[in-house]
Parts: sequence; C-alpha cells; structure tokens
Amino acid sequence: MLKVKPSPISGFPEWLPAQKLLEAGFVRKITRIFESFGYAPIETAAVERDGVLASKGEINKQIYSIFRPNVDTAAERETGLSLHFDLTVPLARYVAQNHHSLSFPFKRYQIQKVWRGERSQKGRFREFYQCDIDIIGDSNLDLYADAEVAGIIYLVFQELQFGDFVIHLSNRKLLRGIMEVFDISGEGETLEFLQILDKVERSASGIEAIKKLIAERIGKSEKLQSLLDFLLAPDSSNREKLSLLKEAEFESDVYRQGVHEINQVYNRLSDMGCADNRINIDVSIVRGLDYYTGTVFETFLTGHEKKLGSICSGGRFDDLASNFIDRKLPGVGVSIGLTRLLSYIFDKKIITQGKSTPSHVMIAMMDHKNIPRYIQWMQQLRKDGINVEIYIQNAKLAKQLKYADKKGIEYVIIFGEDEEEMELLKLKNMAMKQEQTFPLATAISAISDKIKEGITIERD
Amino acid sequence: MLKVKPSPISGFPEWLPAQKLLEAGFVRKITRIFESFGYAPIETAAVERDGVLASKGEINKQIYSIFRPNVDTAAERETGLSLHFDLTVPLARYVAQNHHSLSFPFKRYQIQKVWRGERSQKGRFREFYQCDIDIIGDSNLDLYADAEVAGIIYLVFQELQFGDFVIHLSNRKLLRGIMEVFDISGEGETLEFLQILDKVERSASGIEAIKKLIAERIGKSEKLQSLLDFLLAPDSSNREKLSLLKEAEFESDVYRQGVHEINQVYNRLSDMGCADNRINIDVSIVRGLDYYTGTVFETFLTGHEKKLGSICSGGRFDDLASNFIDRKLPGVGVSIGLTRLLSYIFDKKIITQGKSTPSHVMIAMMDHKNIPRYIQWMQQLRKDGINVEIYIQNAKLAKQLKYADKKGIEYVIIFGEDEEEMELLKLKNMAMKQEQTFPLATAISAISDKIKEGITIERD
Repeated sequence: MLKVKPSPISGFPEWLPAQKLLEAGFVRKITRIFESFGYAPIETAAVERDGVLASKGEINKQIYSIFRPNVDTAAERETGLSLHFDLTVPLARYVAQNHHSLSFPFKRYQIQKVWRGERSQKGRFREFYQCDIDIIGDSNLDLYADAEVAGIIYLVFQELQFGDFVIHLSNRKLLRGIMEVFDISGEGETLEFLQILDKVERSASGIEAIKKLIAERIGKSEKLQSLLDFLLAPDSSNREKLSLLKEAEFESDVYRQGVHEINQVYNRLSDMGCADNRINIDVSIVRGLDYYTGTVFETFLTGHEKKLGSICSGGRFDDLASNFIDRKLPGVGVSIGLTRLLSYIFDKKIITQGKSTPSHVMIAMMDHKNIPRYIQWMQQLRKDGINVEIYIQNAKLAKQLKYADKKGIEYVIIFGEDEEEMELLKLKNMAMKQEQTFPLATAISAISDKIKEGITIERD
Repeated sequence: MLKVKPSPISGFPEWLPAQKLLEAGFVRKITRIFESFGYAPIETAAVERDGVLASKGEINKQIYSIFRPNVDTAAERETGLSLHFDLTVPLARYVAQNHHSLSFPFKRYQIQKVWRGERSQKGRFREFYQCDIDIIGDSNLDLYADAEVAGIIYLVFQELQFGDFVIHLSNRKLLRGIMEVFDISGEGETLEFLQILDKVERSASGIEAIKKLIAERIGKSEKLQSLLDFLLAPDSSNREKLSLLKEAEFESDVYRQGVHEINQVYNRLSDMGCADNRINIDVSIVRGLDYYTGTVFETFLTGHEKKLGSICSGGRFDDLASNFIDRKLPGVGVSIGLTRLLSYIFDKKIITQGKSTPSHVMIAMMDHKNIPRYIQWMQQLRKDGINVEIYIQNAKLAKQLKYADKKGIEYVIIFGEDEEEMELLKLKNMAMKQEQTFPLATAISAISDKIKEGITIERD
C-alpha cells in the first residue's frame, strides 16, 4: 500500500505529551479557580446552525462549514451547519434555548476549542482553546459581577505563574461620555478618535505628538486639558487617575455613570486583595467598542505586551441574547486565549517543560514470573496516590532505565535475580543517580513514603 | 432585528449544567485512573487531511469535511480537510509523525470529541466523546499490555459505579484457528460463520437451534463437538471454558497461540484482583475482525446488554501505523463511548442527577456596604477548599434562598441587619432546613468546619 506521509497542518497545533501534560495541569488549575467561585461547566456542540452564527448580521469569512462529501444525495450532505468561531454566540443560543431550566444569575465556565479560518502565520491559529467565564443576569446584574470576573482573572494569572501581568481596566461609558462632550459621532469620526486612543496606549513616550494629534483632529476646547490629563497620565497611580476622572468636569450623565462604575469595580478589586501594581486604570483600551457597554479590561504579560498582545480580555455587555429571545439578559464575561498563550509560553521557554508521563515510578520488567508480585506492588503504590507503570516490552535493564530517564520518571524499582535472592527491593532515584535497598517484607510501604517525600500528589 | 429561534440539532447532544458537572466528574475519575498507570495525555487536531482519513483505503460516508463558504477564492476555501471520526487513525498519524520524539512503549490516553454523519436516531450521535487508551510498542509488545488495558477498564467501571458490568474476553487467534481447521475461507463463508457466532452470543437459550445451524452450514465433522462444547458453554466457569479451549484438539498453530494468550491475559486479570463474575471468556465476540489480531474484549452493563450494547471495546492489533511508516508498531487499546453511555445513564436515571453548580455554600447579598466583608469570608472559605459564591443580583432573601435551593447549594450564609446588630453569622442548611448562628468573631472558621463535615472536597 502507498504510504501517506504524515505532516502538520498549519494553524492546527498539536502538543507532545510533556506539553499536553502542562496544558492539562493549567486547565485543572483554571477549572479549580472557576469552580471555587461557583461557576458551573457547560459545553456546547462544536457545530451551530448558520443562522445562529450569522445572528449578528455579518457573514464571517473565517467560518468553517461542514458537509459530507461522500454521500449520494444532497439531503445527506447536511448543509447549513458550521463550526463555532467563539464561545459567546453559542452561550447566547444555549441560554436562550434552555432559559427555563437555568437559574439566573447564571454563572458558567466553558473550556472548548473554536475554529477560525485565519490567515496562516505564526501565532495565528485556526483551531484553538478558549477558556471563558460569564455571568448572565435576568433584567439586572449587580456591578459586583464585573469585579468578580476581573478578580478571578487576577487569581488565574497569579496561580499560573507565567510572570508579572497587568490588568488594564476601563469603562466604555467614559469614552461614550467624552465623545458626547466633544461631539464625536458617526463612523468616520469615531474611528479616528479610537485610532488616536490606540496610539496613546502604544506611545507613552510620544506624548507631545499625541497632544498635537488630539488638538488637530478634535480641535481646541476648554475641556481638552481634562481629556489630556487623564489620557496622558501613564505615570500616575490608579487612585490619582480615578481622581482625575472624577475632577474632569464633563457634562455628561453617561460619563458620570462610567466614573461611578470604574470606581466601584476598582474598589472591589482592592477588597479582593489585588496588588495595585497589577491593575492599571487605562481609559485608552479600545477594542470591541460595538460589543461591550460598561466595564472592559485587557490583560498583558509584562515584557511581552507587544509580541503577545492581550492574553485575556473581557467586559460588560447590556444584552447577551437579544438575537434569540425577548428578554433582557445583561452579562459580564472574559475569555482567555489559552492555545495562543501556551504556544508563546512554550516557544519563549517562559516555563520549563517537564516530564512526558504522569508516572512517578516505574517498575523494571526483570522476570515475567514475578509479574503477579509487580502487580501487587503497583496496586499498593496507587492506593497511596502514586502513579506507577511497569516497563512493557522485552528489553535489558539499561534500556529500561534509559526509557525512564527520557520520560522524566523520578524513581525505578528493580527486583532482579540478585535482589530476589537477598530478599531486597532496590529503589533507584533517577535524578540523583542513587540506589537504596529495602528489606522485601516492608519495602513497598517504605518506598511509598520515600516517593511521597519527593513528589506532589494530585487527588480528587 | 429578526429573532433566530434556537433549537437543538439532532445528533449533537448538549447537557444542562447538572449533567455536565457529572460528566466532568466522571472524566476526572477516568483521567485519574489512566494517569495512575502512567498513560500520558495527548490531543490531536480535530481536523485531518483527507488522505490520512482515507488511509485505510475506504471512502467513509460518515466523514464530515470542512470548508470556508464565505471566502472569495477557491484557494481560501481550504479543501482537503475533514473532522476525525475516531481517535485511532489520528493516533497512528501522530505516532508516525512524532516517532523520533516519543519513547516506546508509548502509553497515551485521549479524551476528545469525534464526528460522524450518522443517521439520526435515538442514541446515534454525530458528535460524541471517546475516551481511548492505547499502548504502542516498537517491534514487540509484551502480552502484559493486553491484560493491563482490560484491567484498567475494569477499574474504570468499578469506580464509575453505573451498576454491574461484565467484560467479555476472547482472542481472535482462536477464531482464526477454528476457521482454518474447518476450511472456512473467503468473504462469504467467513461472514456466514461470524453471523452464526453472533447468534450464539444473543441466544444462550436457543442452543439447539444454533447446533442445527452449525451442523447445516459447517457440516458434520469429528471436531464439531469440540467447537460446540466451548461455543455453547455459557453456564461454565471461566476456568472450565479455558480447559475446554485447551482440550479441543484443533490442529492449528494459530489456535494454540490463541489458547496460550487468552490464558495469560485471564491469569493477569486474576492477579489484578478482577472478580471472576465480571469477566466472561466468550469466544463468540466478533466485531472488528479485520482490525484486531489477538486479544479482544467488549464490556456490557448488566441488564442493559441489548439496548445499550457494548460500552467499551478494545483489543490487540499487529500494526498501528503501517499506512504511514515502515516500522512495525504493535499495539493494544480500548475505547469508551462516553457520550452514548452517559446519554443512556441520564435517560434511564441509572444515576441521580445532582447539583447544577459546584458551589457548596452561597453568601446571601443582604447589604452592599458589607461586600468587602463578604469577600473576606469567601476568601477564607476558598482557602479551606470550599467552593463559595455570592448571590449577584438585586433580590429579596426569599428569592435568593430559592435560587440556592434550585441549584442544590448545601448551605447559605446570612448576614443581614439583625445579625449585624447581634454580631452573629447565620448558616442555613438547605436540605435540613435548619439554621445555626455563630459569634461573628469566630464564625467563618466554625462554619468552614461545619461545611467540611458535609461535603466532599476535591483537591489538586
């Protein structure tokens, strides 16, 4: 038969076992944090009806549709179904569909793959994991929710230990208020204004240039100085920035509402013990203006802001499911782009890659007649929470040890002819290259204690 | 805007949070068992090149291909990619592709969705989870591996507690040997023989009919009685059946090899402590003859054999990746059809559905000014491993308690005006409808102890 040459498909990343073990560990930690706040897991079908995906009114070029190419009739092809490109549209559809079975506020997390026909380039994936949490209220939703999701993200990145991070926090109502005051309206003007803001974020050094740009495009006004004050105050403390926001005398209700909300959310984050240097009040964060209506935030890894971009963004939206039901369901949510983040983390060696097996210890296969004994020992070790495998293939001890070493297994148990004769069990510490023997009768519990000193045991 | 009516897509099941929480719990248990034997996680892309999926030489009508419908050029449509329909073809491709990075024997588990364009009917899914484990050897693989995967399946179903189960165990070499002896060859004859066997499995009562069928179609022969002896010995013990197999004087090397192997595997399962009434030596199990080459097994839930069918099948194959590389990679593996199993379990109410949230306790939102205090209490409880949420919406206490009750949250902490005045904290046990008060200063640690008595805490 002709061989098929297996090769990677660009944009569809796959990990080796050591990387996948790390990813699984991160997902476990993230899940644990989400659940400790009472978020319940849901998972939606990978596939949605085209009408659901197009419910926003746009036709998305990134969408992948599915069909059955090898069937006989058009009906069997099953057209009209596509893979989901995010987890928010599916959430909206799910909530609308199961409205009567869910309790509101509905808090869910969802860790799932999504698919997008992206242009192939480094860091652009066509298949990737997203980790989302959202809180959906019925008619109203307390502002505490906004702080909670930001606070959870804080805990997640603290726990994952990828290095320093900063959560940039703003509120859309501030910008809406400012645009109202400066009479910025219409698509063209709004876009121009947002582009200026975008430059603010990127060039704290080029303040004069920005000032000029704002003066030119927005024009002189007695309020311009207030605007500049807080837009261009990157070195001020968060409290100082909040004061500037309050003191800016913009005559706009929506602006004042924004000031109130960002103060509330900031105070709650302080209550949660979030370190102030990991929060940055930053009115300039822009993206998704058409979607978010209140609190917004983006998270950056310190030192990797430009290359990696925001690793986690989220915010408040007025109405989740207006495309599907006549009910006002305000929400606040956040999404971590896990695959892109991990790809970067692995690539830049921000974390050390470890073992390629969950095994803590391997029993060498020395003599087939002793397999019943090996099985007993393994069962005893597993009862103590130790992951243990036996070497399954005919091979010399040297090859078996090499296998354990390559996989990063910490210990090897050896029971060959010599040990059997002397009624001993040998434990080899692979990293230290040390061997220790134990009297056979009490060996396994002694070995178990020894191993437990050196490993972390995960328990359900 | 025109509303889109959200409705389920047949064959693409979705769970409500309570079901998904159960599923997540089962997956955690399964994962823990797989890892305790040293199986490492991998995950492959949902998408494979068509050439990889068609590597077996058949064109599968169930395959879903993907394409981008909204792009401008044919090149952008990205044809030639399809969703995987199982996890074995992807494993073979992954192992061939990463051959130099993996250590053999390679032990991996893979819990992932697969997609098949099935005819829509109850219990037939187009999107479903499979849980697979496989051990892949390089050139050779010890028979211990066969027993290990069967033994792990035993532990899994013991742990999941869906009721009694029986693992039906056979070895393909027995059938191959018998067919050799009876001169059964060619597609037609083989199929007929297998159909007879299939009837044996289903009608232990109709033994006489089967005898007649075998006599008619296979013809009289001095060896027929031996064949009947073990095919039709459903009431014999496993040891008796193994003796019958050994005593049957079939002059065939492959048959004798099969007898040796099934004895070995059976003995190992006994060594592992598998209860004999949960193992059934059953030469009649048939499916996948073209694929498996040695040990085969299928698992049934007692009392649900016919409606549910095999919930987990697996076996030994001579060569995993011959379509992709010139290397002999023998393997043994097993697959649990998780979605179909859980769908049945939920449908037949074989397990009781529980909570729809991971929260153990809810703090009632009584007074916004106390939010900083609520936050502190929650942090203290979370440190003790307790999942805790606060009610996030403006509502009266009665509505909040109803929410906790509906979600199955075990306890509610109440701190309203009265409690604040008396410096007390109130803990309500929702199931018992009992309230208990604690002096404020020491309340949270007392409450934490109380809650920990009543819940199971999962830990990393």
